[in-house]
Amino acid sequence: MPEFIEVPKGLDRVIVADTEIGDVRGEEGFYHYRQYNAVELAERCSFEQVWYLMTHAELPTREQLDAFKAQVAPYRTLTPELRELLPHLAAASPLDGLRTALSAACAARPMRPLLDIDEAARADDALFACAVTPAILTAMWRLGQGLDPLDPREDLGYAANYLYMMTGEVPSPEAARAIEHYLILTIDHGFNASTFTARVIASTGADLGAALVGAVGALSGPLHGGAPARALDALDAIGGPDNIDTWIRGELEAGRRIMGFGHAVYKTDDPRSLHLREVADQLDGDIVDFAKTVERRVVEILAEVKPGRKLYTNVEFYAGVVMELAGVPRPMFTPTFTTSRVVGWSANILEQARDSKIIRPRARYVGTPPPVPVPDGGFAG
Amino acid sequence: MPEFIEVPKGLDRVIVADTEIGDVRGEEGFYHYRQYNAVELAERCSFEQVWYLMTHAELPTREQLDAFKAQVAPYRTLTPELRELLPHLAAASPLDGLRTALSAACAARPMRPLLDIDEAARADDALFACAVTPAILTAMWRLGQGLDPLDPREDLGYAANYLYMMTGEVPSPEAARAIEHYLILTIDHGFNASTFTARVIASTGADLGAALVGAVGALSGPLHGGAPARALDALDAIGGPDNIDTWIRGELEAGRRIMGFGHAVYKTDDPRSLHLREVADQLDGDIVDFAKTVERRVVEILAEVKPGRKLYTNVEFYAGVVMELAGVPRPMFTPTFTTSRVVGWSANILEQARDSKIIRPRARYVGTPPPVPVPDGGFAG
Repeated sequence: MPEFIEVPKGLDRVIVADTEIGDVRGEEGFYHYRQYNAVELAERCSFEQVWYLMTHAELPTREQLDAFKAQVAPYRTLTPELRELLPHLAAASPLDGLRTALSAACAARPMRPLLDIDEAARADDALFACAVTPAILTAMWRLGQGLDPLDPREDLGYAANYLYMMTGEVPSPEAARAIEHYLILTIDHGFNASTFTARVIASTGADLGAALVGAVGALSGPLHGGAPARALDALDAIGGPDNIDTWIRGELEAGRRIMGFGHAVYKTDDPRSLHLREVADQLDGDIVDFAKTVERRVVEILAEVKPGRKLYTNVEFYAGVVMELAGVPRPMFTPTFTTSRVVGWSANILEQARDSKIIRPRARYVGTPPPVPVPDGGFAG
Repeated sequence: MPEFIEVPKGLDRVIVADTEIGDVRGEEGFYHYRQYNAVELAERCSFEQVWYLMTHAELPTREQLDAFKAQVAPYRTLTPELRELLPHLAAASPLDGLRTALSAACAARPMRPLLDIDEAARADDALFACAVTPAILTAMWRLGQGLDPLDPREDLGYAANYLYMMTGEVPSPEAARAIEHYLILTIDHGFNASTFTARVIASTGADLGAALVGAVGALSGPLHGGAPARALDALDAIGGPDNIDTWIRGELEAGRRIMGFGHAVYKTDDPRSLHLREVADQLDGDIVDFAKTVERRVVEILAEVKPGRKLYTNVEFYAGVVMELAGVPRPMFTPTFTTSRVVGWSANILEQARDSKIIRPRARYVGTPPPVPVPDGGFAG
């Protein structure tokens, strides 16, 4: 006879799997990819090195990285079929368009069920999906602006190429490196809702594309996908240092959340926020000093109004500042997040695929007890 | 200090939510939608009546059903934009094509985040998605066969219209009613992997389309989406009554699963299978008697070879027989399943949307303990 196990709603603090990909220690303000401090990886590595680490569970040698880049390179150019398809999708929001286009790209490859293919084939599917994601997003962005999509520039690093394919301009080394830091810092972060979505889908043995498309959908949720653009909109709304208190207290009195503050897991400074503040400091912009002033004052007010809640800036607050100063258009803030997170999702999918156990929980029925006889004709009344 | 809760892998028997939608009692071989026995609903109701029940939590009056049908009707015709898009997707497998096209259809509507809209707007989005799903699938099937998509026939019932839009022929009343039974029986079935996927995505506040697209991806997994076509392929491979024992024992010795037998929750006869066997009996076809002979013998052999496992036919076994006799092409068996399950997913999404708690579990890190210093230059060695 089966015994049932009750757990808190939202699966708060419920450990649903073992992982070797990384972890978040919310009380310490520390997170890591594999055995490395994620912030240290951002400081010392290129995006491709960390991408390799996530996929292969170890940092590459120079030769391995070269081979990896060669394997990825052809996937960065859209196929003719996809280029034909994208104009049909460019009217959608960037994330919705990505959801559709990534689905089409993976189906056209075609991807086979994870259950039916070996590790190497799965890893190759993952490289394809991770490489095609920024290509899709930048092409759709340009199409939406009435511009032609651009081919990738092999002479540019990952982040510089991404900015180039979006804006058509080669960014400054500082801007490119700032975005590279942001991308590395946001590759993975525990079993958040989109990562968990990807793993649930992967547990059915479906193809990697199916799992990623589900994850993109989860990331599009306002409670998950982050709010770097909204945090920046808030800075605009505040306008200047004299208005900080009035604006924040007004928002709190109206019962609204202050975007860019608070996190489900961190109960101290978010290490991503701390590092992105340093990154922002390297970039020119009055907005950095203003953001720091707002941060300081909001944390003080939140500690006063919501004592004990331990609310600090989360990754989105300085992410918005960094992306704005690096020239990313605001509608592309959350889409830019997907270009790094797709690497983390993929690593999680590959790990989940090594397990043949489907994820299938239970619910407790709390409605009217059955069976009530179905009325003749099937009508109420 | 947070306490962590460990649960079995795959969330077996873990109760993750309360629900008023329905339940599966695996030991009893009973399942229900709301307060009604699902099999009784299939016997007494039209598909639209049960669809209404799932969405509105009660059976409709005649007037309510008429209003419901009027609300659904315009959504059964593809928009010009979607008709233009589908030929680009028709080369994909039907489920992959649906994943992409449903994503595009929901984005074009456009759907707004569940978090930002009221119950009525959410329910209308759900009607749209449920109505457009069979329209997409039948149009893509016909395009793949070099045929033009057909407009719906308002004079036909739900199942008859589905068969008509796929094949171009008005089915016999017996075939239409058999498919209607199948569709009603497969609307919902507990927190299976695709339903859970839909709810995880919905918990982020994303739009209904994002949640459905993820669910389609989960359903495409070989461990979940069912195997009605494969169960029928097995009947073909067996060929005749004399070959049953040899074939089954050969499959078991090779370590392969026998498609159409065994279920994660049912440890007795699957009530869907029992009812579909009766439905199949009403249809003409030698295959029904043969299927019954195979069922009897396989259950005996499984009881002998895997004692105590309680393996019986699941929904897929007779579903394949019913669909074959009703004229559904085999590649459309699992896609046909989605046309009913999308109603169950939608009901679950609407229920989840009433809760503002994001689903975000934890994992236990079991890799090399961090932090290991990142080597200079970020290379291994």
